[in-house]
Amino acid sequence: MSIKIGILGYGNLGKGVEKAVKQSPDVELEGVYTRRNPADLKIDSEDVPVRSAKELENGREDIDVLIICGGSATDLPEMTPKYAKLYNVVDSFDTHANIPAHFDNVDKSAKKGGKIGIISVGWDPGMFSLSRLYASAVLPDGKDYTFWGKGVSQGHSDAIRRIEGVKDARQYTIPVESSLKAVREGKNPELSTRDKHLRECFVVAEDGADKAKIENEIKTMPNYFSDYDTTVYFISEQEMKKDHSGLPHGGSVIYSGKTGDNKHVIEYSLKLDSNPEFTGAVLVAYARAVYRLNREGVTGAKTVFDIAPAYLSPKSGEKLRAQLL
Amino acid sequence: MSIKIGILGYGNLGKGVEKAVKQSPDVELEGVYTRRNPADLKIDSEDVPVRSAKELENGREDIDVLIICGGSATDLPEMTPKYAKLYNVVDSFDTHANIPAHFDNVDKSAKKGGKIGIISVGWDPGMFSLSRLYASAVLPDGKDYTFWGKGVSQGHSDAIRRIEGVKDARQYTIPVESSLKAVREGKNPELSTRDKHLRECFVVAEDGADKAKIENEIKTMPNYFSDYDTTVYFISEQEMKKDHSGLPHGGSVIYSGKTGDNKHVIEYSLKLDSNPEFTGAVLVAYARAVYRLNREGVTGAKTVFDIAPAYLSPKSGEKLRAQLL
Repeated sequence: MSIKIGILGYGNLGKGVEKAVKQSPDVELEGVYTRRNPADLKIDSEDVPVRSAKELENGREDIDVLIICGGSATDLPEMTPKYAKLYNVVDSFDTHANIPAHFDNVDKSAKKGGKIGIISVGWDPGMFSLSRLYASAVLPDGKDYTFWGKGVSQGHSDAIRRIEGVKDARQYTIPVESSLKAVREGKNPELSTRDKHLRECFVVAEDGADKAKIENEIKTMPNYFSDYDTTVYFISEQEMKKDHSGLPHGGSVIYSGKTGDNKHVIEYSLKLDSNPEFTGAVLVAYARAVYRLNREGVTGAKTVFDIAPAYLSPKSGEKLRAQLL
Repeated sequence: MSIKIGILGYGNLGKGVEKAVKQSPDVELEGVYTRRNPADLKIDSEDVPVRSAKELENGREDIDVLIICGGSATDLPEMTPKYAKLYNVVDSFDTHANIPAHFDNVDKSAKKGGKIGIISVGWDPGMFSLSRLYASAVLPDGKDYTFWGKGVSQGHSDAIRRIEGVKDARQYTIPVESSLKAVREGKNPELSTRDKHLRECFVVAEDGADKAKIENEIKTMPNYFSDYDTTVYFISEQEMKKDHSGLPHGGSVIYSGKTGDNKHVIEYSLKLDSNPEFTGAVLVAYARAVYRLNREGVTGAKTVFDIAPAYLSPKSGEKLRAQLL
């Protein structure tokens, strides 16, 4: 019997979830839910209905887990608690400072409905968080470093697009090679924001736009760019399409710890051709776990820290022990 | 209130556990148990009693978790089921083919006693197994590669020491750089045993021993060396002591998977100055988990696959979410 998945929101992440569902023999897509007019939305899975998000509200949709693919700024804080009363839900909430409040809201509402709401699933937060936890639990005397990239930051790309005279933009976050090297060698350096990452921007300017002004606006933009060494390249629309249409990302969590005088370096790294497709795949694995745990009677808010790894795999305990241990 | 730990067996691993206990604020060492005469064993923790392993048999020792630091060939298959009836236990059983049988034996006995027995804890099996599981659950369409080293293999070093004319030996397992590179690039190569690892041997020969004969015996030794490119260096006793007294190890689990046409490479790697000290640190983190789970009423055999990561850390769920998620 398959686990029935609903997807709420059909942007890049929702499409990534859809692809991941297709690769998983034990889950199937029951419906895609949208806040737009369902008739206007064409999805890849031709045999799957597109329905209005409103249909979810009576709690009677025939789905085991709802994967909520919304933004962390305004969508998820409202949607995840709302639907956690009615369905097991998974989200990828990533506004770090607000995780405790979001967790509490989801917890109350999931417990009320006898469901599980797992929040902040993906790779960071998500797989990277797991690496930080495992490493620090094993080696309490140590320090973790997280490097992102090389990869496209959609938030930074959007910030550039909002500048006057910019037609399109793509921003790559790149770890500083010498800092990565020092951390990997267990040197435990103190690193400033600028020491850890570079920012590389590819910009298509409107005809006749003032490129020097655009470049200066990017480089001095607070929070996004002013604390980094930033390089700006102006390219044609054609080059943008040809060379920068993917959404690759990745990075490394490096933990450098000690037992007595002996040093140990633990590194978990990801090189992803598609950030939203990988994130979608993580969401589906945790949807499987949530479904199983809820059937065992577990309810409330959870994070990746609370889920025993075996629940993520479709394989039995016997098989896992024989094949992967 | 601290978690009370007993260590059974005081070899390199037992000493590693002892060091890890000292670094963990919430656990304390209650006793070291030995099959030798306790009076003959001097341990680093001067205030901790050394007792005979026989004392464990009445089940009345005041310990919350017994960490069994014995060999996988003959010690653990007998000891872990025996003590799992009486105490929560942790072992590092690593004879892969026998894991299912060992698991069943420990399960029966731990359930009888209302205890937990967690087996095959360490880094491989252990942390490496977790990486294989997480990666394959997220990306079902993929393939995992495990490389060990550069590091000292104690089994291979011992095998050389058994050759006539050998006074001492140290064997390093080294991953083949070009294979590592191909795997990291997501090329999914087919690799033979010889393609994956090299073996480098440092040997101190007895005075007047036939070095050519020793070298030949090493290189042609079935299972251990004959399937590998092996290099043998003869060195002095002094050089051995100076350059090869450590027990460094490590390696990488690399998983190369796909979502549709997009490739993703996940790598988990360890660079360890001391294999037994890192392994000991992993055992202590899982001892903490086992203690907590048993207090919640959980019993039976477990592996790292069955333990939610939060149980490994002394930090509360709130702190973990705020600091590491």
